Amino acid sequence: MTADQPEAGAPSASSHAVEGGGGTIMADEIREQPAVLAALVGRRVDLVAALTEAIPPNLRGLVLVARGSSDNAAVYGRYVLEYATRRPVAMAAPSLHTRYNVTTELEGFLVVAVSQSGRTPEIVATSARLAAGGARTVAITNDLSSPLADGSDATIFLDAGEEVAVPATKTFTAQVAAFAILAEALGDVGWTTSNWDVALTSVAEVVDDDLPPRVAVDSIGSPSRLVQIGRGFLYAVALEAGLKIAETSGVSATGYSPPDLQHGPIAVAGPDLHAICYAAAGPNLPDIAEVAEQLADRGAAITVVAVDAAHVPAAATFVPVPAGVIEPLAPLVHTVRAQQLALHLALKRGINPDRPPGLQKITLTD
Amino acid sequence: MTADQPEAGAPSASSHAVEGGGGTIMADEIREQPAVLAALVGRRVDLVAALTEAIPPNLRGLVLVARGSSDNAAVYGRYVLEYATRRPVAMAAPSLHTRYNVTTELEGFLVVAVSQSGRTPEIVATSARLAAGGARTVAITNDLSSPLADGSDATIFLDAGEEVAVPATKTFTAQVAAFAILAEALGDVGWTTSNWDVALTSVAEVVDDDLPPRVAVDSIGSPSRLVQIGRGFLYAVALEAGLKIAETSGVSATGYSPPDLQHGPIAVAGPDLHAICYAAAGPNLPDIAEVAEQLADRGAAITVVAVDAAHVPAAATFVPVPAGVIEPLAPLVHTVRAQQLALHLALKRGINPDRPPGLQKITLTD
Repeated sequence: MTADQPEAGAPSASSHAVEGGGGTIMADEIREQPAVLAALVGRRVDLVAALTEAIPPNLRGLVLVARGSSDNAAVYGRYVLEYATRRPVAMAAPSLHTRYNVTTELEGFLVVAVSQSGRTPEIVATSARLAAGGARTVAITNDLSSPLADGSDATIFLDAGEEVAVPATKTFTAQVAAFAILAEALGDVGWTTSNWDVALTSVAEVVDDDLPPRVAVDSIGSPSRLVQIGRGFLYAVALEAGLKIAETSGVSATGYSPPDLQHGPIAVAGPDLHAICYAAAGPNLPDIAEVAEQLADRGAAITVVAVDAAHVPAAATFVPVPAGVIEPLAPLVHTVRAQQLALHLALKRGINPDRPPGLQKITLTD
Repeated sequence: MTADQPEAGAPSASSHAVEGGGGTIMADEIREQPAVLAALVGRRVDLVAALTEAIPPNLRGLVLVARGSSDNAAVYGRYVLEYATRRPVAMAAPSLHTRYNVTTELEGFLVVAVSQSGRTPEIVATSARLAAGGARTVAITNDLSSPLADGSDATIFLDAGEEVAVPATKTFTAQVAAFAILAEALGDVGWTTSNWDVALTSVAEVVDDDLPPRVAVDSIGSPSRLVQIGRGFLYAVALEAGLKIAETSGVSATGYSPPDLQHGPIAVAGPDLHAICYAAAGPNLPDIAEVAEQLADRGAAITVVAVDAAHVPAAATFVPVPAGVIEPLAPLVHTVRAQQLALHLALKRGINPDRPPGLQKITLTD
């Protein structure tokens, strides 16, 4: 169904316009994602060709530089790039370079710096310091004339348009797609154009149908704590979901992988906790189902975002995603569900997600 | 003052024995740390010699493998090793190797795997997979006859003794010291034996004086949310403090670096939030003071663990650490303060930190 075709029993079109987030910029920007992603993926072949030229001929490893939402996209990049290149991928520790003036020896390394504005001083400075150590550099940014793009050997221009709402949505999914395209340029990903087509169609379907997350938010209620759970390619979705919910609703909503939860924080689980699991068919699915069961045993409530509710039997609430998306591209689809959940959790609490209390978009820090 | 010499006006010796955590295994294990660290650092010269032999002659980079508390120690390792070697340091994504069967090309790399028991299947398997990619391996473990030690080119044996309490304390600080010793073997750290002496003396002083954290816990009260803040070498302390408090008290207590807080989660700051800052003289100190002020402006209460309360002017509560410890070794001292805070926060809530509800030490997952 689309936003304009409520089902029988669903909220009316007019309440949808408000409760469905139709009046918020965040909702508008969520809906822009199919077009932004289609345009970016449409430039895929040219981008792969340009990137291939910028890559060191004998790649030894990669270093990613990012903060905030972009850092969560980089966590996806961390998986998909090591998966494709079979080379180690590190996340830079910016303070080592900007505060301790360490120059790291990076001959044969590729640095990928991610900044929506391309102007975050810490990201620009760290990328330049790493380049001084011998690395080639790729920028992933929304501004082709930014200092970050200017200083890099190659740029993936997101062309996502201005992001007006404070919580980043279309920038994040565009960054995820950019990392997937970079992975194609650098190695063997095992997917084809038709896999992209299915993923993009699924993103559009999910964008057009936000009834399931709205209903789920009613089931979730107002728990004092939320955790977000994902693993492998979907670990980044859990981190981004946690950040987005914390930003828009002001509730604690940390993202975890199952082993990280099981190594300690599971102690905080109880009836006041609600866990949202992001699950896709793949080798990590049993890990997600297992930790969900352990949390449910402790009284926590579970929501699952997946193709099939049966993937996580402990879940009482189910938010569907379309079938057929391969796991490495599934984060594009699952992230839209996470954005919708964050949007509707905020609206339910009477918070304007465009201008949540306390959060400001600071150009200086991206 | 020592545990047996309460000052005038301080809780009596008998209430100290209970409220001071004297009756808990966690408190006993916190007090074992000076001896454990002294023994480990006492083997420093031999360890450096043995490790130097195991290192690839032309080191290209490092990959660290860990989970839970050990993962926080590895975050410290991530900083101190890149600082010392000027080579990129990556944190492994275990699922890539154990779930997706990726074999990463690691000729010239050193893998450092950290596991208290040396028996966590995921850690042992990931280290072996990375070795199959061409890396040399070092194990940091408390069991010399464990599969992890057996399968590694060199081992740093912590010799911390059995850890009976569920929340790891002495194992964590021993792991931090092990990473510092490894940094000495691999590069130029710029510290000497006398710096170690000052650090170990300071750990002993802090262990013997737990009145400040007990008093601080009264000021902290029962906020619904705690955040822990550190940067650079002390970022790992913030992460470990967050894990320890969550494990023992069941409250959400995530660790952040200042930029990560400023890029989003600062939105959750309000009067119900208490932030504990771990600060040491060094290039990151202004960043800590700045974010503390921003949080205080939003109504959050601030505690600072530092040599001097004036380092973080926004803090209303001050937990002192001794002067003279160099910043790269300061995590040893600040971590003990974090452990004491976690212990007393739990006791104040009537929770036995040795057996917090929900948390079990699972040998299989370390």
